[in-house]
Amino acid sequence: MSRYTVGLDFGTLSARALLADTADGKVLHTVSADYPHGVLDVCLPSGKPLPKGFALQHPGDYLFALYETVPVLIRESGVRPEEIAGIGIDFTSSTLLPLREDGTPLCLLDEFREEIHAWPKLWKHHSTAPYAREIEKVAEARGEAFLGRYGGRVSSEWLLPKVLETLREAPAVYDRAIFAEGMDYMVRILTGELSRSASSLGYKAFWDPRDGFPSADFFRAVDPRLEAFPAEKLGGRILPPGSYAGSLLPGIAGKLGLLPGTPVAAGTLDAHAAGPALGVTRAGQMYAVLGTSGCHMLLGDREKAIPGICGVIKDGIMPGFYGYEAGQSGFGDIFAWFLKNAVPLSLAEEAKAKGVGLHDLLSEKAARLFPGESGLLALDWWNGNRSVLVDPDLSGLLVGMTLQTSPAEIYRALLESVAFGMRMIVETFREYGLPADELIAAGGIAGKNPLLMQILADVLRFPVRIGGADQASALGAAILGASAAGKARGGYDSLADAAAHMGNAGSVVYLPDPERADRYDTLFGAYRTLHDLFGRGGVSTMKLLSSLARSRDEEVSL
Amino acid sequence: MSRYTVGLDFGTLSARALLADTADGKVLHTVSADYPHGVLDVCLPSGKPLPKGFALQHPGDYLFALYETVPVLIRESGVRPEEIAGIGIDFTSSTLLPLREDGTPLCLLDEFREEIHAWPKLWKHHSTAPYAREIEKVAEARGEAFLGRYGGRVSSEWLLPKVLETLREAPAVYDRAIFAEGMDYMVRILTGELSRSASSLGYKAFWDPRDGFPSADFFRAVDPRLEAFPAEKLGGRILPPGSYAGSLLPGIAGKLGLLPGTPVAAGTLDAHAAGPALGVTRAGQMYAVLGTSGCHMLLGDREKAIPGICGVIKDGIMPGFYGYEAGQSGFGDIFAWFLKNAVPLSLAEEAKAKGVGLHDLLSEKAARLFPGESGLLALDWWNGNRSVLVDPDLSGLLVGMTLQTSPAEIYRALLESVAFGMRMIVETFREYGLPADELIAAGGIAGKNPLLMQILADVLRFPVRIGGADQASALGAAILGASAAGKARGGYDSLADAAAHMGNAGSVVYLPDPERADRYDTLFGAYRTLHDLFGRGGVSTMKLLSSLARSRDEEVSL
Repeated sequence: MSRYTVGLDFGTLSARALLADTADGKVLHTVSADYPHGVLDVCLPSGKPLPKGFALQHPGDYLFALYETVPVLIRESGVRPEEIAGIGIDFTSSTLLPLREDGTPLCLLDEFREEIHAWPKLWKHHSTAPYAREIEKVAEARGEAFLGRYGGRVSSEWLLPKVLETLREAPAVYDRAIFAEGMDYMVRILTGELSRSASSLGYKAFWDPRDGFPSADFFRAVDPRLEAFPAEKLGGRILPPGSYAGSLLPGIAGKLGLLPGTPVAAGTLDAHAAGPALGVTRAGQMYAVLGTSGCHMLLGDREKAIPGICGVIKDGIMPGFYGYEAGQSGFGDIFAWFLKNAVPLSLAEEAKAKGVGLHDLLSEKAARLFPGESGLLALDWWNGNRSVLVDPDLSGLLVGMTLQTSPAEIYRALLESVAFGMRMIVETFREYGLPADELIAAGGIAGKNPLLMQILADVLRFPVRIGGADQASALGAAILGASAAGKARGGYDSLADAAAHMGNAGSVVYLPDPERADRYDTLFGAYRTLHDLFGRGGVSTMKLLSSLARSRDEEVSL
Repeated sequence: MSRYTVGLDFGTLSARALLADTADGKVLHTVSADYPHGVLDVCLPSGKPLPKGFALQHPGDYLFALYETVPVLIRESGVRPEEIAGIGIDFTSSTLLPLREDGTPLCLLDEFREEIHAWPKLWKHHSTAPYAREIEKVAEARGEAFLGRYGGRVSSEWLLPKVLETLREAPAVYDRAIFAEGMDYMVRILTGELSRSASSLGYKAFWDPRDGFPSADFFRAVDPRLEAFPAEKLGGRILPPGSYAGSLLPGIAGKLGLLPGTPVAAGTLDAHAAGPALGVTRAGQMYAVLGTSGCHMLLGDREKAIPGICGVIKDGIMPGFYGYEAGQSGFGDIFAWFLKNAVPLSLAEEAKAKGVGLHDLLSEKAARLFPGESGLLALDWWNGNRSVLVDPDLSGLLVGMTLQTSPAEIYRALLESVAFGMRMIVETFREYGLPADELIAAGGIAGKNPLLMQILADVLRFPVRIGGADQASALGAAILGASAAGKARGGYDSLADAAAHMGNAGSVVYLPDPERADRYDTLFGAYRTLHDLFGRGGVSTMKLLSSLARSRDEEVSL
């Protein structure tokens, strides 16, 4: 009998359900649904306005997407419910819901409906920045060892800054709530049991499989009311990715067209789910999800405290390895900015006359250039720098313009800049004894920008493989489901086994060209000089400019 | 009886004749003519190809323009020949003609027609760069004091590099030739006498009214064949601007519709001629001709050796003062580059829908921004830096971009960058005891870009006046003609007198706004940091990029 698993991928604006064959990971069908409320960043559904930096979601949207996708997936693909071996989930993170003990989101209760802090805070809810700084300072002052696992920094996107904001600004919500990541909330919906994803606790909540949570002393130092925070507010079993979290409740199973008792896997982070889908199973493999921003994961065989990385968690991506995460806060959105803001009419007309897209025309022209030929160099910090500098106040830089500089030359310089940014991350890992030897690229940009992929190979000096899975995170979720099902039910007994059979590392490989790579070594030296100069305090120009820009904002808003 | 003078302004691509009233400088009429051959930078008129960097002209074009403009000017304005008190000339410089002793351009002789070095070398003939470096090294090694008058550098655009190139690459031309600046050639055509413009010898040929030419030892050190160069090849009286050079020959007078014997003034440089036309007559007044590039002249009451200025010559602009010249090698051409290469379709469509020009739309949006609000800062070196760094290998830089950065913000940052570049020049003068207290702006950009004029006032912290003379150089030439005529013939007895009566400093003045000026002080500090870092050797990124770009050129051209 054929066996399949369902992967549920909850993104920022929509969710996807994917059906994969457990034998080979072949994707039979996918169905997606947009969240009706999308991101709540202007007002609550009631119209109540939200402060700047808020990014909330409606918990009903997750259920809506579940019911809009899975039944259609099963019906349209024609599989029988008994052929479904398991279900896996990935989710954005830290996307945090305050729940009543019984699992009801607080924001759905009449008394909390108009309370902005009772709503799920999306990963990119950024009003928490001052709380993140506060927590970072406490951890630094106390010399907390856990900070080393996060590159020495605390991001406003993580769990504790969201919780601290709620505690300080809406203590009644804090008092009544337990907290759950979106992935854990969905596992609870499906199984009735609240467990905790070890991945999300690891990468977003300072937890570690060896050391557990930070000490009560630390939490008390942040705020006395947080002393027993993990036990009081984050209770439940902590489960590594691919482990069995529970089985499908009868009530839900009926609505989804599945059998009660179908195994459900512990959830994981969306970017991390892509690893198994891309067949990443050994140390030295780096994979990257390249979209508007870039998220890079490296499997390592040892733990190192590396400054400026986003996190390292044992078993966090693949049991048996240390999963390192790093990021580039601007990636495809830099090219999108350029296309929208800086490509002249003449090129738009040329593209139209040739019947090609603007991006294709620019790529064609840029591909004819040899590295360094344009005399341009850029720092890729249009959206700040996540790794290795961890500094949102940094900004973009372009140098080398002459009166002959063309738009295609600038476009290529921007492509090169993100490749140099990635090389900074790779070099940092290498300096700490974690050499990467291959990049597996996934995400929207990987398959669509061959010029960029070749530049990445030339700059990184190792092969860049285009991940074969189109919907890597959703396929990864399906692989988690196969691992949770176990061999006896047609799945696998480990996530590594499931990934080895169902993952798809792809067959398109870009190899470095030695002549171009040599030239890029020279250019990367120049990039590194500017990187350190502007990013490490030698020249504070970007900080000054950023503070001047902000100060005027404040004047204007008075 | 009314009195008028004719100003002849010989530019790069065309010449203008202007008729001005000697009483008040009122312009009665102008007539212009394009040079039929323009700039010869691809091939000789015969089709013989030219090396890279060559920029020649056809001497017949100057006569063509003379005969196409003056007779029409006189006829159309209805003045009588006896009402013309004098004629003045300005010309690009160093634009150098090799002549036979009798004044015939060598390139018009059969034996030299195909000899590329026999043709007039236009000011922007840049193949001379290695010769300029060679001369600079010799002067430096010998500790030549004259170098201090030129900011310590030798430009490829000056006279001696052009001559040395001819000597080395076409010794037969050198042997047969005497050399004349275009302005001196035209004075010879009109008067039959070869005199020398003190201005062009001063600013372009190392001559000084006190010290004369450099020593024979210096010329011998450059090349033994140059030992007696000034006496052999640059003979003739040396005349300051506005002095009488001779009187109109009967043969020419008839062709022009003028009277024989009409006084002709010694020529001057085109940018310098604008000074009298703008009523610049006292120390501390700075005037600038702002077009594709910027040329800045300051009258000073003392001589200082200032690094990085283009030159200082006693009496060079206005008798009685030290005339300082500095320059910005990129000015309006930076904005033109931006409009052509970096303004998106969406703005082009918005401009069309509103029925305004793209430049006007950008200006309107940029004018709404407060200094620093965009978080952007630029170095204005798209065409290298002429003053105060004197380095053609420097290039443009833009820093501070975010995903929210708009085209209008970048446009304003570029406007600000040239204002900061001008402030660097002003600050350098000030540091050497030559404070400027007013800018008089002339040239194509001055009247057309009120936003830029306001930014200049705010950045420089002193008033910016828009020069009233539309064709400042041509009016300046007419003022030279009035000075040469003398009071007895309806002119004036000094250039200062003529300028005081006929010059037009304009009535539109931009005053600094204290709040914006304070903010610009801060931003200028950041500009200066980057200026010194990238321009004075702290960071060699621009040099590296420029050499990489060139090295590929060489590979490609092999």
